[in-house]
Order: sequence, then C-alpha cells, then structure tokens
Amino acid sequence: MNKILVFGHQNPDTDAITSAISYTYLLNQQGIEAEAVALGKVNEETAYALKEFGQDAPRVIESIGSQTDTVALVDHNESQQSVSDLAEVQVHSVVDHHKIGDFTSASPLTFIAKPYGCSQTIIFELFQEAGIEIPKEIAGLMLSAIISDTLLFKSPTTTEMDKKVGLALAEIAGVDVEKYGLALLKSGTNVDAKSASEIADGDAKSFEMAGKPVRIGQINVVDVNDVLKRKEEVIAAMKELITANEYAAFLLVVTNILTSDSEGLLVGSDDFVQHVEQAYGGQVIDNQINLPGVVSRKKQVVPPLQSTF
Amino acid sequence: MNKILVFGHQNPDTDAITSAISYTYLLNQQGIEAEAVALGKVNEETAYALKEFGQDAPRVIESIGSQTDTVALVDHNESQQSVSDLAEVQVHSVVDHHKIGDFTSASPLTFIAKPYGCSQTIIFELFQEAGIEIPKEIAGLMLSAIISDTLLFKSPTTTEMDKKVGLALAEIAGVDVEKYGLALLKSGTNVDAKSASEIADGDAKSFEMAGKPVRIGQINVVDVNDVLKRKEEVIAAMKELITANEYAAFLLVVTNILTSDSEGLLVGSDDFVQHVEQAYGGQVIDNQINLPGVVSRKKQVVPPLQSTF
Repeated sequence: MNKILVFGHQNPDTDAITSAISYTYLLNQQGIEAEAVALGKVNEETAYALKEFGQDAPRVIESIGSQTDTVALVDHNESQQSVSDLAEVQVHSVVDHHKIGDFTSASPLTFIAKPYGCSQTIIFELFQEAGIEIPKEIAGLMLSAIISDTLLFKSPTTTEMDKKVGLALAEIAGVDVEKYGLALLKSGTNVDAKSASEIADGDAKSFEMAGKPVRIGQINVVDVNDVLKRKEEVIAAMKELITANEYAAFLLVVTNILTSDSEGLLVGSDDFVQHVEQAYGGQVIDNQINLPGVVSRKKQVVPPLQSTF
Repeated sequence: MNKILVFGHQNPDTDAITSAISYTYLLNQQGIEAEAVALGKVNEETAYALKEFGQDAPRVIESIGSQTDTVALVDHNESQQSVSDLAEVQVHSVVDHHKIGDFTSASPLTFIAKPYGCSQTIIFELFQEAGIEIPKEIAGLMLSAIISDTLLFKSPTTTEMDKKVGLALAEIAGVDVEKYGLALLKSGTNVDAKSASEIADGDAKSFEMAGKPVRIGQINVVDVNDVLKRKEEVIAAMKELITANEYAAFLLVVTNILTSDSEGLLVGSDDFVQHVEQAYGGQVIDNQINLPGVVSRKKQVVPPLQSTF
C-alpha cells in the first residue's frame, strides 16, 4: 500500500476540507502514511477557519492518476461527488454522514457512516476509540466543520452527539462557540464578491434522480436579497451550467442563516417544476419557490425531491 | 418507528444468527425495541452453539410484510442476500464485515462495516463504546460466531482484533477456546445426514458477476471424501438448483477444517470454467478443481473469481 490520499467531496465545504485534515492526522498517529488533499479550492468560510487555526489549505487534485493506489473518502461516498478515477484505486476507508449512494467495494473495508450532522462528529469518536489526543488546532478545525454543517446547531440535521462533541472541541480549541461560530458563518456569506456562477455552483452537488443528474446548490446569506437582487444573472448562470454539464435541472437553495429560512431558485422542465412543487408543497413563480424553515439540503431538500421521482 | 427486526443473511450461518441476537440485545439495552429474527433455519453448528449457551433459535421470516417498517441488517448488506422486501422498509442500521454491495439509502443512517473476520467483532466494539456489559450467554454466542467465521483463527480473514475479542469473549463465557472451538466446528460437519442439495446450497450465497447471479456454496468437513464420494449426486443437485433459480453457474467449496485446504466442485458453461481456472490458477477436471490453502469464501474465493469478470 502506498500513501493514502484522504479527501472530501468535490466543491469542498468546511467539513470536506477539515475532515480530510483531521482524519489524516488520526491515520498518521496510528502509523499509517496519509496526506490530506482536496477536490477543489477552499471556500471563504473554510479559509477563515484555516487561518484562525493556523493551518494551510490542502493541495487540490482532480484525479489520483499515478500518485497512489489507495485513498480514503471523508464526508462523501457517492462516486459522482468523488475523484474522477475512483474506480481505478483501492479505498482504505470511508467516513461519512450522508445517505449511502452507489459505493461498492471488491473486498471488505472500513466504512463508517452515522446519521450525525457532521463527519467530524464521527471522526471525534474515532479519536476517542483509538485513545488519541486531539491537538488544539485540529480541534478548532473540527469544531468549525460542525458549526458550518449544523449552522451553529440550528439545522434539523443536528444531533445531540454533534452538540456534545462541538462543546468538547470548543473547550480543546479554547474558543467561545457562539462568538466564533457566528463570525465563521458570516465569513462565508460575502455574496457581493462572488460571480453568479460561484453563487449557484459554489457548494453544489449532483444527485441522481430518475437516472439523471440534478444539480442542487446552497448558499448561506444574512440577507436573501443579496442573491435575489441578482436573480436574472444567477438564473442565466444556472442555465449555462445545465447546458455545459448536461444536468437535468438545477435548484439553488438560498439560506438565511439568521432566520433559518430559504428561497429556492430553479431551472428545469415543466415536469421538474411539478416535482419541486410536490416536494416542498409550494408554488414555483418565476423560477422561485419559498422554502420556510428549510436550512438542510441533506435532510430537507434532497430526500423530499428524490421521493417524488 | 415500530419495533426493529434484526436479521442476518439468507442461508444463515452462526455469525448471521448470533449477530442478530447480540445486536438486538445491545439495541434493547439502549432502550430501542428490537427483535432478532432469521431468514432461514439454523444449521447444525449454530444449533450446537445455541444449545451450549441455552438460547432459542430466532423465528424464521421470509419477508417483512406488515410486521414492521424498520429493520437492521447484520452480517450482510447486499439486497440479494437479504429479506425479499428490503426496498419497502427503512433500514435503522447495518453492521457487517463483508464487501459493500448494492446497498443504498434515501437518508443517512448508521452503517458500520469493518474488514474483520466476523461481524461479532464489530458488535463487541459497539458494546464497549456504549459501555454495556455482555452477559455470559451472549458472549458465548459471539465467540461461537468468531470461531465459525475464522475457523478457530486459522482463516486468512482473521484479524488481530478477532483474536483479541475472541479471547475476551471466551473469558466472559467461561469456555476453553480450543476445546469448545473444535467441538463447535465438528458439530457442523456431519455430511452424511445432509441431502445433496443441503450440501451444495446449505451455506450458499449469490454473487453478481458480469450482471448474472453466480451461486457459491461452502461446506466444512473433517474429510473431503465425505462429500467427494457423493460427487455425482451433489453435481446433479447443483444442476437442479441452477435450473430452478436461474443461476449463471454454481461453485461449491468443500473445506477441510483440519488441513485448511479445499476442493471446488462446479457446474457452469465452458466460459465459466475458464474463469474459475484463471481465478484459482488450477485445472478443472471432471467438474472439480483443487484449491490448496483456500478456506475463506470471502477473501480467497469470491474476489479472485469476480476480478476475472
């Protein structure tokens, strides 16, 4: 076995990046050679967290190629969200908190999925089971991911374990959860600096529905009008992304992290619009649908939509 | 959520049956209503273990029907090896030590797979993490599964953790591992009492290869001639099973638990015979191939064959 390359999903968010870092640290401490890499550049929120705890962003790769023959996946398990040549390499382990997708293996391996709000909560348990201490800067990154994924424990994906682990990590990292958490979340909401395409696709993932890839993006804001005032431009960018990547449709969820409500912007066929209306029980008017109380793509956006197909 | 029905794979072996029992006990201790059931009758070896530790065999089900809406899978994750209406119910959790097959979920769930020799080794870790004590009779069943799956720690699937956990369980159960282990393994090798069809299919599982189900059975013996003297009859039974169930081919691995060698008996097209010869590097003569040093279907039989397709 060569060095294990450890990475999270494409369009990496704070959990994808920092889970690669913390899981790599854990493997290294267990005497396993591993390196954290990323399937894309870090976003502003992640950059904020990395800077806060004095860590570098992992180098970006697109494929494994001849770099190694063994990888570990964190914060994802579906091939669509992974490295392009995943099928060519061996998977050492998977640590994830998403639904189980098309992942298969030729041999037994370590595959730990739990229905927590964040992958780092599982990784915290792995540290505990292995009896390995978490350094302050790693704890800070792990906490950042939990804050990011649970929107400071407000998302319905948040479990008791996420809260418990988050508080334990804050203690190790020596930060005030509320104060640091709000600063972290706000750091990722600078919409004005983003292009329309970055707004739509920055955190987007593809989900197979009726055999076709539906693109679902999400952007956190402190005022939804920061996005809605650029609606025409964003819709145009979504159309271009659909054409360029042959998506069946595109749904962008604009989430207000202060009120925990969202607006959905969408582009797709009449049939797709009907699926969206059925899934969320509202009306699509002018490519837009009101999504009150919706903050979690994983729990409140994807499953209802998928179940209409 | 209704009561969780917990079960192992079809054609249950000792791990499938006893992991359902131990995992159900663990869930019950955590305040979760659960019942261990089985997707088939217990075999002689499992009956021996249940009797030894004063436990009843779980009731047999074929489908879930209206019994509950939630299940937990142990010792398997592939739909082909599970309950017929798995797609109709929600899966609470999966604990398994096999390769990851076609399992998918609509929502996040607990899915713990580890490359150990036995599912019970993972369940032992779950007991430890939860801080729940293992009663003597449950420990005895868990140990029985580890002995069965690792052929008393001799199979190449055996990990250091299986040994460590096995010894810890033997201590709790109050048995001598070697003495009890050999008695347990021998209890399952009474070939004379079995019909040809039971010999071939008693512990068989289906594996998808090139899109078609290949049936692979395994039987442990203390003398391979106990099976080979009935070769004609067994081959005929395999042919009947192929026809009745539309298998692409059938491979039966006859394993001598004392010498750790096997003989393969097979029925299939010329093409399948070539795949078998390529996979195991021997020659098929008269529906038979020598498999020296082969004791593990999971590690030494399925992956080499699958990789030729």
